[in-house]
Amino acid sequence: MLCAPNPSTITRLSAWTLRKLREDQDAKARTNESIFRAEEAAAPMDGGSPRPPRRPEREGSYNYDIESMDSSGAGGVPPWRPQHNGSSEALLRYDDGGAGDRGSTHEPLLRKRTMNTTSQIAIVGANVCPIESLDYEVVENDLFKQDWRSRKKKQIFQYIVLKWSLVLLIGLLTGVVGFFNNLAVENIAGFKLLLTSDLMLNERYIKAFFVYGGCNLVLAASAAAICAYIAPAAAGSGIPEVKAYLNGVDAYSILAPSTLFVKIFGSILGVSAGFVLGKEGPMVHTGACIANLLGQGGSRKYHLTCNWLRYFKNDRDRRDLITCGSAAGVAAAFRAPVGGVLFALEEVASWWRSALLWRTFFTTAVVAVVLRGLIEFCRSGKCGLFGKGGLIMFDLSSTVATYSTPDLIAIIVLGIIGGIFGGLFNFLLDKILRVYSIINERGAPFKILLTITISIITSMCSFGLPWLAACTPCPADAVEQCPTVGRSGNYKNFQCQPGYYNDLASLFFNTNDDAIRNLFSNGTENEFRMSSLFIFFTAIYCLGLVTYGVAVPSGLFIPVILAGATYGRIVGTLLGSISDLDPGLFALLGAASFLGGTMRMTVSVCVILLELTNDLPMLPLVMLVLLISKTIADNFNKGVYDQIVVMKGLPYMEAHAEPYMRHLVAGDVVSGPLITFSGVEKVEKIVHALRITGHNGFPVVDEPPITETPELVGLVTRSHLLVLLNSKNFMKGQVKTSGSFVLRRFGAFDFAKPGSGKGLKIEDLDFTDEEMDMYVDLHPITNTSPYTVVETMSLAKAAILFRELGLRHLLVVPKAPDRPPIVGILTRHDFMPEHIHSLFPNLNPHKYHSASMAG
Amino acid sequence: MLCAPNPSTITRLSAWTLRKLREDQDAKARTNESIFRAEEAAAPMDGGSPRPPRRPEREGSYNYDIESMDSSGAGGVPPWRPQHNGSSEALLRYDDGGAGDRGSTHEPLLRKRTMNTTSQIAIVGANVCPIESLDYEVVENDLFKQDWRSRKKKQIFQYIVLKWSLVLLIGLLTGVVGFFNNLAVENIAGFKLLLTSDLMLNERYIKAFFVYGGCNLVLAASAAAICAYIAPAAAGSGIPEVKAYLNGVDAYSILAPSTLFVKIFGSILGVSAGFVLGKEGPMVHTGACIANLLGQGGSRKYHLTCNWLRYFKNDRDRRDLITCGSAAGVAAAFRAPVGGVLFALEEVASWWRSALLWRTFFTTAVVAVVLRGLIEFCRSGKCGLFGKGGLIMFDLSSTVATYSTPDLIAIIVLGIIGGIFGGLFNFLLDKILRVYSIINERGAPFKILLTITISIITSMCSFGLPWLAACTPCPADAVEQCPTVGRSGNYKNFQCQPGYYNDLASLFFNTNDDAIRNLFSNGTENEFRMSSLFIFFTAIYCLGLVTYGVAVPSGLFIPVILAGATYGRIVGTLLGSISDLDPGLFALLGAASFLGGTMRMTVSVCVILLELTNDLPMLPLVMLVLLISKTIADNFNKGVYDQIVVMKGLPYMEAHAEPYMRHLVAGDVVSGPLITFSGVEKVEKIVHALRITGHNGFPVVDEPPITETPELVGLVTRSHLLVLLNSKNFMKGQVKTSGSFVLRRFGAFDFAKPGSGKGLKIEDLDFTDEEMDMYVDLHPITNTSPYTVVETMSLAKAAILFRELGLRHLLVVPKAPDRPPIVGILTRHDFMPEHIHSLFPNLNPHKYHSASMAG
Repeated sequence: MLCAPNPSTITRLSAWTLRKLREDQDAKARTNESIFRAEEAAAPMDGGSPRPPRRPEREGSYNYDIESMDSSGAGGVPPWRPQHNGSSEALLRYDDGGAGDRGSTHEPLLRKRTMNTTSQIAIVGANVCPIESLDYEVVENDLFKQDWRSRKKKQIFQYIVLKWSLVLLIGLLTGVVGFFNNLAVENIAGFKLLLTSDLMLNERYIKAFFVYGGCNLVLAASAAAICAYIAPAAAGSGIPEVKAYLNGVDAYSILAPSTLFVKIFGSILGVSAGFVLGKEGPMVHTGACIANLLGQGGSRKYHLTCNWLRYFKNDRDRRDLITCGSAAGVAAAFRAPVGGVLFALEEVASWWRSALLWRTFFTTAVVAVVLRGLIEFCRSGKCGLFGKGGLIMFDLSSTVATYSTPDLIAIIVLGIIGGIFGGLFNFLLDKILRVYSIINERGAPFKILLTITISIITSMCSFGLPWLAACTPCPADAVEQCPTVGRSGNYKNFQCQPGYYNDLASLFFNTNDDAIRNLFSNGTENEFRMSSLFIFFTAIYCLGLVTYGVAVPSGLFIPVILAGATYGRIVGTLLGSISDLDPGLFALLGAASFLGGTMRMTVSVCVILLELTNDLPMLPLVMLVLLISKTIADNFNKGVYDQIVVMKGLPYMEAHAEPYMRHLVAGDVVSGPLITFSGVEKVEKIVHALRITGHNGFPVVDEPPITETPELVGLVTRSHLLVLLNSKNFMKGQVKTSGSFVLRRFGAFDFAKPGSGKGLKIEDLDFTDEEMDMYVDLHPITNTSPYTVVETMSLAKAAILFRELGLRHLLVVPKAPDRPPIVGILTRHDFMPEHIHSLFPNLNPHKYHSASMAG
Repeated sequence: MLCAPNPSTITRLSAWTLRKLREDQDAKARTNESIFRAEEAAAPMDGGSPRPPRRPEREGSYNYDIESMDSSGAGGVPPWRPQHNGSSEALLRYDDGGAGDRGSTHEPLLRKRTMNTTSQIAIVGANVCPIESLDYEVVENDLFKQDWRSRKKKQIFQYIVLKWSLVLLIGLLTGVVGFFNNLAVENIAGFKLLLTSDLMLNERYIKAFFVYGGCNLVLAASAAAICAYIAPAAAGSGIPEVKAYLNGVDAYSILAPSTLFVKIFGSILGVSAGFVLGKEGPMVHTGACIANLLGQGGSRKYHLTCNWLRYFKNDRDRRDLITCGSAAGVAAAFRAPVGGVLFALEEVASWWRSALLWRTFFTTAVVAVVLRGLIEFCRSGKCGLFGKGGLIMFDLSSTVATYSTPDLIAIIVLGIIGGIFGGLFNFLLDKILRVYSIINERGAPFKILLTITISIITSMCSFGLPWLAACTPCPADAVEQCPTVGRSGNYKNFQCQPGYYNDLASLFFNTNDDAIRNLFSNGTENEFRMSSLFIFFTAIYCLGLVTYGVAVPSGLFIPVILAGATYGRIVGTLLGSISDLDPGLFALLGAASFLGGTMRMTVSVCVILLELTNDLPMLPLVMLVLLISKTIADNFNKGVYDQIVVMKGLPYMEAHAEPYMRHLVAGDVVSGPLITFSGVEKVEKIVHALRITGHNGFPVVDEPPITETPELVGLVTRSHLLVLLNSKNFMKGQVKTSGSFVLRRFGAFDFAKPGSGKGLKIEDLDFTDEEMDMYVDLHPITNTSPYTVVETMSLAKAAILFRELGLRHLLVVPKAPDRPPIVGILTRHDFMPEHIHSLFPNLNPHKYHSASMAG
């Protein structure tokens, strides 16, 4: 939303965000107020607009930063050491907006000095949160090397065992949660349907509607309430958020324990409330949350930590665990272990290695075994209403698998329909989500109100629309009981007299899983009338669109499969006379085509459908239909998750570089000024830099007298600096030490990343004046192997390097040796199109030309 | 083999290699002889040993190269421009050993100056070839940018359409070839078996043996002959070679048209000859060859080129096509489209992106459709003996899928057995292949002789061993005909009287596919006696080991599945009383466990088995057994393909860095001296550098008077230099031009990479003395965005960068700005353990310490 082209929405949203964030942080320390005051005098104010104005055109002057550094060098300061500087990882806005009493007019102060205009906040779930980048680079500093040398075989073994135990535990827990979810939904929704059916049987229709609608309303309202008040980040599918996390964007709330709690119970309540939404997306998010929680060694907030999980206190190991968790989620949702692995690979993960494939596979295998065991346990009827329903598994294997030319044509038609409907779905969903986010940002009551409205509409549709369908006499050769009165079943009685069934009620007046099962069912060629199918399709398509954005954990798989299966069945029924294939099979193909059209996944959808239906001979047909629908839909827009990621303002790095990046070089987008530290730096300078900026990485440059000429030592991160400052190992003079004190006192784990959102803050540290005048040796904690690019490196290639290696900071070094050893730092935000276009407004991404070609 | 620890084998093999290569290149130009002579006087000779001696220990002096450059700078030469230099991509040995009459004593001359001691040759198939690195980096020079700017929408559309057409064509052709392979095998082997069975029926056993053995011998000898004389690279599975190619190692013969021809027909002959080998590995290689041929626009040698395929004249697009081809090969071999995609992903490819998943998936879908169509066509009996056999597809879906605790224990036992047998298999195979390569290197007749020997042993086993089994009466409730006399069938009559069958003959006296089908068959609990299964297992295990290395296209899948299915069936029969599972199912699980134990694939094997057997409910069991066997076998050794890649001396870059690399920095392994060119360079210097070295990349440094200070422009490749030199656009003076002449005269496609092994050679170019004195502007063809690392970058991180981005050259730049702008070049060979250990012999990879930690 924040990166959306609509400026009014952006401004409104951001203003609200800042207000919100300021409230949250009112209790914060105000020690840095004096610094702000001092800077205030020098910098002009910028009104109340929270988004800085676009940088003026600077075409043809792309060397600006470098030149200004050179000229400042002429004025007495060493040329390789600019004074007023701030790296391009722009501040988190709430850091400077933290002092609530100073009001919003103070905020632009610092932002004036940071050139990067991309947003540091994004929508997570239904809330706006500050975001942070993850760092998948191995920090190779002296501490790390010391630790590596001393690491014993025993420790390595311990690490491996722990890793596998965690993976096993993720599988176990996700499997249990997935089963619990199904069990709860089947029981709650089943009870609701039984209650209503009883009343229907007694022809007390009005009361039945109020009971049905009332149940839905209560369930929906409670789902929305826990979501809005406890964890707004749990709203929606969660797949876009997990995808962004695995791409390297973190926000505290994405994988927090509260999110996990709401995701589990909100999803149960939401699905039971009869919404047109699924539990699949939320299951992926749930799996990721479980993995994160286990990897962090539990939640520190709830005192559930475990110290020997220190090995996983880094972004890379967590990324691996969370990838396993998301695969486990899919596996649990669909009972599709191979599909889960492929889903994680194709849709969710941004980085992949062979070892990860293997570990993910293990996790999903565990999930499959757990689910199987629990289902066996319930087979004897110990689980209430949980029976054949739940854990969708549609056995179609009896279908005849011969197909002829008309079938193939029908399949191509299905693919085309899927592509068009899918593209349209994505387009409309984007519009609706943008409207919803305006409603959602007004606060929790509005979120709940929106949810209740949608719940009432849904109840009216599912109870009201079946009245449009006439009663149909039960077929004589029905395999299943007809009519069914109870909870599930293919031929719903609804208002009809005995011996008749209501085909629309069989679809509407059911859980979504059962509706899909009915649509996929074999040997029921004439069960559904065309008119009923048309009504159902229209209703589901629209309800699916309006339901996704409400503040309830909601997956997109089920609405998409439902809508696709319906039009597939329509095509199948139309072709009834000339095709040998069963309409149930066409429903499957329709579902595949719509999945391909919206989500643009191929192999994973194919395997998930294969595992769902157990119908291997249909594989080539499913592949064909997916290929066609995806190809067509790709001409209209991006896949639905990619689109939501962009809409939410999450700075996602694509695997490929944009074409206009080829015409820029790394030096073009480096936005200064830059803060560098000397190898042995004055405490005051470090504290000041940490207080006035939100930067996370600072280059370290050794200068005379430590070395003969200025040379680049490496990069030091904020979190490492904070730990070092906290230890107060300061020295009187600016001399290089052996670093042994630090190496003796600290292990690499002392600098490890804590659980998300925790850890030292600069506001927590206090220094005396005497300490501020002392020096500290940064060498032991400096990452001496940061990745670098030369300033003349094409931006496209720098972006590929940044993305493929999962970096957080990329140092830009000068081309010629007579310049300061470091030109700037590139971060994720510097590669974002908004930033590049604000620097080069005349850069037309479509025409592939720019003034900076000479670079 | 070349990188094998056994030094005697290495020396022998290398000596032979050099001799062989020298013969091949006798006709080469000898223009550079004078240069060799001139150098000869200065450099000491080194005996006849083709492998240079280990570099003396240089511990503690890892800054040697840098220092020497600095000191040479003091002696009048500009400090940033060393004089005698040669990059670390060591020469291809045959380049300097090319002049046949000078004898082997001349060879060490140049090698003395290149520090990199890793081998530039490797075993491909059954032959030793020079290898070359591939370059997946985008070369961003002025030409490329000009081309990019002028590239019209129409061209982009053309490119996309072409790409998809090629992918479609790869699928079509691979499908057809795969079907043809099966058709031919079924007919040839079927005819052979029918002939023998007839004689057996008439009790003419001796004659039957000679007919059987004779057929096998003739087929085996012809397979070996075409392989040995036409394309030795086609021997073996081909998967290691394709894997190495996709990792970035090329050898002309790997994917040549002749290899394709031999791979197809050699595989048909080999499988028909009754060897214990499969057609699956060769099908992967065949698919890759087809993809390569199509991507190159046909074979230039056979005048089958197509000019509008110029878009694919680069390593990256070819890599994508070949990945699709290898997936199509698996899909065609197993009729497993999803398995094919996963196999390519898990085992073959080194780089993967989402778009590739999608394209691969399309290819395999096409293969599946083609195969289905052709099988439908043959169903009416138009294809000779091709019937139910061929294209292994075992329908087990009727199996009951409930399992109990004893079953699980049995499955764990199977996993453990699979892991142990698998590890042992890999160990023994490695030993046998090392022995075989000594035999194979003696020449084609020896290769054929070896093949014939193995063929006779195989014939003796398959005809002789069934006599050990007693005749069994046919079961009354046999589903299939009993006894069968003809070609295939479950109950082979062999020597038994009517009403009896020979269980060992049902396994031995069949095609491998039919033997597997019999082992997997359901409802035949007591068909095979324990003794027969033991005999069969032992024979197949040993024959599988000794067959793989012969000069015939031979896959490992079938022997592994056969052996695994046999011990699985043994376990199943043993458990007969206490388990509900069918022995056929245990055979499947046994096959999975042995596949996991040898090949160490997980998801792909699982999906392939799933698609082969159509038995989805068994998936969790298959996953479990694979996990156990892989885990156990991983403790012993690497996967069989990885092991063969190492044994063949292919410089494979692993995805992760070795631990000892953390203790080295990039500057440590840079082996000088380095050749750099000036931005406007004298023709003579370029020609000389190209003639005396085999380097492929040269850094370009602008120096005064062109720029004020020396600065790095980028990297220029040998092939680009040759095209530019060939155009003879030389200038009188050393002045920088606008480059417009070059830009006007050339398009980027003129510099595109030609088909493998072709293209301009320096020996093809002649220059007058006048031309040699002129200058040429290298700026337009210089890649201005080469990836760089600072010399103090940890070698482990440099290796990750190199591997993840698919580089061929990685420039090392200095740490401090007062030094020449380039320190050296890292190539694939500089990351090889052999090279690093030759530089740092005291570096113990297991103890994680080294003297160079201070770097």
